[in-house]
Amino acid sequence: MYDFEFHNPTKIIFGKGSHHKIGEVLKKDGVKKVLFVYGQSSIKKIGLYDDVVKSLIDNGIEFIEHGGVKPNPVLSHTKEGIEKAKRYKVDAILSVGGGSVLDEGKAIAVGAVSDVDVWEYFLGKREITKALPNYTILTLAATGSEMNGYAVITNEETQEKLSIGSIHTFPKVSILNPELTLTVPTSYQAYASVDAIAHVIEWYFTCSVCPNISNLLVESVVKSVIDTTKRILKNPQDYDARAEFMWTATLALNGITRPGYKDGVYINHMIAHSLGALYDLPHGACLSIVIPAWMWWYKDKNPSQFERFARQIFGLSSKEEGIKALKKFFKEIGAPVSLQDGGIPSSDIDKIANHVYNTTAKIWGLDKIYTPEKLKEILYLALRSNIE
Amino acid sequence: MYDFEFHNPTKIIFGKGSHHKIGEVLKKDGVKKVLFVYGQSSIKKIGLYDDVVKSLIDNGIEFIEHGGVKPNPVLSHTKEGIEKAKRYKVDAILSVGGGSVLDEGKAIAVGAVSDVDVWEYFLGKREITKALPNYTILTLAATGSEMNGYAVITNEETQEKLSIGSIHTFPKVSILNPELTLTVPTSYQAYASVDAIAHVIEWYFTCSVCPNISNLLVESVVKSVIDTTKRILKNPQDYDARAEFMWTATLALNGITRPGYKDGVYINHMIAHSLGALYDLPHGACLSIVIPAWMWWYKDKNPSQFERFARQIFGLSSKEEGIKALKKFFKEIGAPVSLQDGGIPSSDIDKIANHVYNTTAKIWGLDKIYTPEKLKEILYLALRSNIE
Repeated sequence: MYDFEFHNPTKIIFGKGSHHKIGEVLKKDGVKKVLFVYGQSSIKKIGLYDDVVKSLIDNGIEFIEHGGVKPNPVLSHTKEGIEKAKRYKVDAILSVGGGSVLDEGKAIAVGAVSDVDVWEYFLGKREITKALPNYTILTLAATGSEMNGYAVITNEETQEKLSIGSIHTFPKVSILNPELTLTVPTSYQAYASVDAIAHVIEWYFTCSVCPNISNLLVESVVKSVIDTTKRILKNPQDYDARAEFMWTATLALNGITRPGYKDGVYINHMIAHSLGALYDLPHGACLSIVIPAWMWWYKDKNPSQFERFARQIFGLSSKEEGIKALKKFFKEIGAPVSLQDGGIPSSDIDKIANHVYNTTAKIWGLDKIYTPEKLKEILYLALRSNIE
Repeated sequence: MYDFEFHNPTKIIFGKGSHHKIGEVLKKDGVKKVLFVYGQSSIKKIGLYDDVVKSLIDNGIEFIEHGGVKPNPVLSHTKEGIEKAKRYKVDAILSVGGGSVLDEGKAIAVGAVSDVDVWEYFLGKREITKALPNYTILTLAATGSEMNGYAVITNEETQEKLSIGSIHTFPKVSILNPELTLTVPTSYQAYASVDAIAHVIEWYFTCSVCPNISNLLVESVVKSVIDTTKRILKNPQDYDARAEFMWTATLALNGITRPGYKDGVYINHMIAHSLGALYDLPHGACLSIVIPAWMWWYKDKNPSQFERFARQIFGLSSKEEGIKALKKFFKEIGAPVSLQDGGIPSSDIDKIANHVYNTTAKIWGLDKIYTPEKLKEILYLALRSNIE
């Protein structure tokens, strides 16, 4: 059991109809004016936009709109939001949408109280010492952004996809109403499921000290994702399955599965971020392409964890069978499991490897282990038929 | 999945030597004067008292001592602490010890900013709307008090053992150094293990809606308690086992295993509180006497959860086998599993049943279900040989 700190101050309000409480929640906290951040038209289609506006007005909360957040949120739009937040002197950010909207909301919360270019925080040149309080209503369970301090933004000019993380960017309150996810299409559900699994297995497989209690919690999350995803794909209107998945995805990245692990790294996310930046594929799809390949490449470096995974999750006896079973699950739910599945030509492997190496690997200090040559080895394993 | 709210703002600092950070932590939060709450001489014997005092002095924190907290903390001593906190105008409470010390610290934190008799909060006559911030250093993992808002105090005059719970009484920071638990005797470890299991199984067995993800988390906690307890009893100096147990006991009652359950009640705690109040037995010992009896009495009221427990925890196929296996585990680790084991005469069953009914059952609103007759049925099952 390695030394750790755990601190997650986000309050979760979970349940049917819970989004109607947003105005009341803000009022209770003394918030008077918010920047209302959202994505495309979907929140208007399902009536959520109207519900939120009504709740804000009923509680006397002023709001400035900042719609149009992209699925992979971009720096230019974030900067527009920061400008609005400053111009209208809002006292909080209200983000309504999926992980992308929540992430952009956090980045705006940081930039709104800072005089420097917000990208400097992503480049690790500045430390986040404050942010506006941010509140969220989640419409797509996947990233866990509703209960952590992380935000991932893409700089379109430099093609870098980078993250920040701070205690100051944890949402103050996140409202999770599973009813809002009943219309999430099966393809996005599949990506969301991959993402939630990815969040917990990164440290599980790369730890040098791996405490049993954290392993058990990780396995609980993975088992729940597999169980709920199957139930959702069978019946998208299954409220309980949607609800259990939603909370499971939150648990997957709210820090509770990590204590005591030593040396964990987000290696699959590192490669997936480059695929996302280069090909504009959904994050979960990038992960399902990378994970089986990386697992195969890494399995002998931490054999006991890979054997444990095969046994606990699938009741199988070898690491190789465990990896194949996970790949099969990804495939069954409709997630891509090879570069070809993602429409990425094998001739791009060099380009991808260099992109990973020169961006995230260097920034995260993983360039010593993950050289372009090693990254190419992993990417070759992501070609169809290399792990069957 | 039933609607829920989750909010746990406590920061955990976990690891070797971590208690030396207390002065620094308080200073960073702007605390200038604390009431230093502790129990008997044990923190002095292990050098912890000196370490804490040094860290406080080094960081310019004034402190007023309030030692002598009893294993089942009592109201009169709590009131003395409240008086000191008011007289010396402390800005925070620092509790150093096991769950009893932490509980008394929380009750003092409530009373110190209130003009009414603190017992009124325990009787449910007043709502807690504020409290002094409380900080803790834990020396005995068991109650989970280090990461929740609960406190249990015994009123010696009325022989009532009651609890409070509030968002305002969550510790601001709790420091968990597993090294401090290396000297915990095996008997106390056994009680602690029973307590941690009790915290998670109450809702698990009494839920009317029982989501898979929460069931998986509960089972993770129980598995970890069984695993670590065996390792600790085999080798009390096993740091990793002590550390994993310590964090597991925190998880058992920090709220993370409860979301989505409907209708859970702390029925075993209810009965155990009366045994504690009447016989001054350790809380864990009261629980290990009650739990197998109550499980046997209740098993057919929620058969799927009892079957699941047997299968997931012990790999057994019937509810009855699961209960017997848990009773056997309690016995093996040295916890009492019958009234006789606890030195309680069977002729006291009427008295105990009436005590439970007239105190906690009424206050918790469980007197409709748990009438004196039903309570007697359960207590009869706690006689030796009634469940073998």
